[in-house]
Amino acid sequence: MDEPASEIEAVDPPEGDNTPWLGLAERLEAGDAEALAAFVDELSAEDQRRAFSRLGAAEGERAIALLGPGSAAHVLEHLPESQAADILEELEPAVAADIIEQLPADVSTDLLQEMGDEDSGAILGELDDAEEAEELRALAAHDPESAGGLMSTSFVAFREGATVAEVLEDFRENAETYADRDVQYSYVLGPGGELRGVLRLRDLVISRRSAKVGDIMIPEPLHVGVGDALTELHKRFEDTRFLGLPAVDEAGVLRGVVSRAAVEEAQAEYSVDDFRVAAGIVGGEELRSMPMLTRCVRRLSWLTPNIALNIAAASVIAMYESTIQSVIALAVFLPIISDMSGCSGNQAVAVSMRELTLGLIRPGEYLRVLWKEGVLGFFNGAVLGILLGTIAALWKGNLWLGAVIGGALMLNTLLSVLLGGLVPLLMKRLKVDPALASGPLLTTCTDMCGFFMVLTLATAVLDRLV
Amino acid sequence: MDEPASEIEAVDPPEGDNTPWLGLAERLEAGDAEALAAFVDELSAEDQRRAFSRLGAAEGERAIALLGPGSAAHVLEHLPESQAADILEELEPAVAADIIEQLPADVSTDLLQEMGDEDSGAILGELDDAEEAEELRALAAHDPESAGGLMSTSFVAFREGATVAEVLEDFRENAETYADRDVQYSYVLGPGGELRGVLRLRDLVISRRSAKVGDIMIPEPLHVGVGDALTELHKRFEDTRFLGLPAVDEAGVLRGVVSRAAVEEAQAEYSVDDFRVAAGIVGGEELRSMPMLTRCVRRLSWLTPNIALNIAAASVIAMYESTIQSVIALAVFLPIISDMSGCSGNQAVAVSMRELTLGLIRPGEYLRVLWKEGVLGFFNGAVLGILLGTIAALWKGNLWLGAVIGGALMLNTLLSVLLGGLVPLLMKRLKVDPALASGPLLTTCTDMCGFFMVLTLATAVLDRLV
Repeated sequence: MDEPASEIEAVDPPEGDNTPWLGLAERLEAGDAEALAAFVDELSAEDQRRAFSRLGAAEGERAIALLGPGSAAHVLEHLPESQAADILEELEPAVAADIIEQLPADVSTDLLQEMGDEDSGAILGELDDAEEAEELRALAAHDPESAGGLMSTSFVAFREGATVAEVLEDFRENAETYADRDVQYSYVLGPGGELRGVLRLRDLVISRRSAKVGDIMIPEPLHVGVGDALTELHKRFEDTRFLGLPAVDEAGVLRGVVSRAAVEEAQAEYSVDDFRVAAGIVGGEELRSMPMLTRCVRRLSWLTPNIALNIAAASVIAMYESTIQSVIALAVFLPIISDMSGCSGNQAVAVSMRELTLGLIRPGEYLRVLWKEGVLGFFNGAVLGILLGTIAALWKGNLWLGAVIGGALMLNTLLSVLLGGLVPLLMKRLKVDPALASGPLLTTCTDMCGFFMVLTLATAVLDRLV
Repeated sequence: MDEPASEIEAVDPPEGDNTPWLGLAERLEAGDAEALAAFVDELSAEDQRRAFSRLGAAEGERAIALLGPGSAAHVLEHLPESQAADILEELEPAVAADIIEQLPADVSTDLLQEMGDEDSGAILGELDDAEEAEELRALAAHDPESAGGLMSTSFVAFREGATVAEVLEDFRENAETYADRDVQYSYVLGPGGELRGVLRLRDLVISRRSAKVGDIMIPEPLHVGVGDALTELHKRFEDTRFLGLPAVDEAGVLRGVVSRAAVEEAQAEYSVDDFRVAAGIVGGEELRSMPMLTRCVRRLSWLTPNIALNIAAASVIAMYESTIQSVIALAVFLPIISDMSGCSGNQAVAVSMRELTLGLIRPGEYLRVLWKEGVLGFFNGAVLGILLGTIAALWKGNLWLGAVIGGALMLNTLLSVLLGGLVPLLMKRLKVDPALASGPLLTTCTDMCGFFMVLTLATAVLDRLV
């Protein structure tokens, strides 16, 4: 269902130099690997992403294969993870393995985790370096949102007995290798690789050359466990000023270093995920470069259960057909009550989600939320109810209609903010993603109650309304 | 309208050691400054936040004043910015100034920017160090989401002519002062403070002691301008592996260093803001510790315009009262059509917002979105329309009713995803916050069109429906 590259060009008219994909498509068609690599290397990360998002799936694979491992790795690092993993899966395992070797271990790990087990296994089997394959396999076994999944394995470590002179000599010899590592802190290890201390480059610089690193290191340093979860890591970094923390396994052996930037980035991605899910994008990120069928099915997987929930809510209306028959104006106000209550509830959901993230409330603190939202819901319900009630009364010149509509909105606003405040806490306690369940559940409940209140009140005073 | 501290305890039953605010309130009541500071210093950042969110505004100020500048600064750094700024505003300017002096410059700047001009001016006037006051004033003039607002001013710099030996000696002498600075990179400046190069600690360590820093530095280093905006900075960090970049003013003078972590953090905060605004929390973050009236008014400022938009949409229903009178079942389906179209549209909004963030589409690329959403909208509309139409037909045993409901949902789904995909691009081009305007605008449009389609179709085939 995806359209060929030639059609895209017609659909997307060129806009000055805003169209890097035209240059990419042109060089890809010419099949000149060198010219292609030179062109792609000059593009910014953003332009690489834009260009590859415009190619069809087959063209993207061909471009990556043609680029050669170095440039290909550079591009894949900047593409959305799902897209990069899809491309690698489609390549020959041997070609993909050459690219994986060029990527930093944490990026390779993320991509391997994104693939099916069969594909990632095939690629790992093709790696020249059996030790690297083993390491990547071990890394890929970690939860991507744990210290093990976020850590970098490129760190610099020394034995306790080494002298400052030896360490400085090592830096001199390996200047090239260490170029992309954070050497501000290096680590001091025991005989079995156990983390013993942290060595600050600053301290190395200001110490005698004959001093032993074991004597100038910071002993018993702050560290995290490889299994520690993202939220835990986030808290740890909040309580310290360090830019990185060493991650050790259960035996105390140093396995990697988690950087503050990696944690912030993962946390940001997490917030974006929440936003996406709350907006009805489930099953992972959606990009318009994905196959049409995937996009349709994923969106429908959110929409079709929603139809069922909507019908459940609307069945309340069906029970009161005769009341609506008598007072047709009610049909005008039902969608308003539904939408307004949904908005009020969503505000309370957002505040609860934020307070949960900041750790200001714990899942069990229902009473605090009830109290804080109750007072607010009462006040806002009164304001909104009086407003809509007045409009209803003026429109039909019937005070009773105003009272019914206003009263129902008032009560339903109170109910919506109470439920909206509580549902995320409840979902969290039940270990369900609050963003996934809060919205539809809340809307169904508040719709049902809203319809019920309007129509019961109206039925009770039907004589006054007609 | 906020309740006193004693009431909170009753509302929030203690849960094991989950209640740091009880300890805080107890020590605050005793008025023992030392015991209070000792207690607070032991709490994690999260527990400090939780404890202070439970105190009333007056108690919070009293606690901060009692803590002394050091511990107080430590706490304020962990509180949500708006809360910390509120507390500082209420304190005596001299007391607030003592606390400001203990905070890192970037944190003080954020807090001063959050306050009213009068309060921040009074506090700056009370600072002992006139030079520091001037620097903070200059920093606070920067946009908080620019390099100037995000940078740290604690960097280490040397003149070109300095030797490696002199630099290392400086590190030795100032080890204490530099303890909380990033010394992995120091900067080399010209006579007027212009950025000339970057000095890697690694290179210092491996160079001869007599070498001049001007010879071992990396000349013409990557840098950003103090006025560069967050999105620009985000892109710059994407294209490099550096953990920090120097920020220079228009004259090329080094003003500070922007860290990758600061940019990631600001970017994360930005996504969270979007989420909040899309959920109807406008005018800044809402926390349940804020005064009740502020919370009510802010939420109403989103809800009351929403009533107007809802009435506009519902007025379409009012025009077709006679049709509904004849086919009362339509009243049951109107809220369903409204909700389902809103959901479909929001999915498209979320995808467009994500693609804008990643730079995969530019605000002008309407045709690409129209094409990509059009095909999807057609397919999803067909699936949902057939589903709901079948249910309607079966319920009332009337095929025509099914055709009207199904057809309307089909068309309106197509319309919703097209509009949902386009509205964020349009808002961006009009320089309106896409998160703020997309939701309500979209819902109103799709509601109106949905109601219109159902009721026009129904009116057209009215004979077959009754």
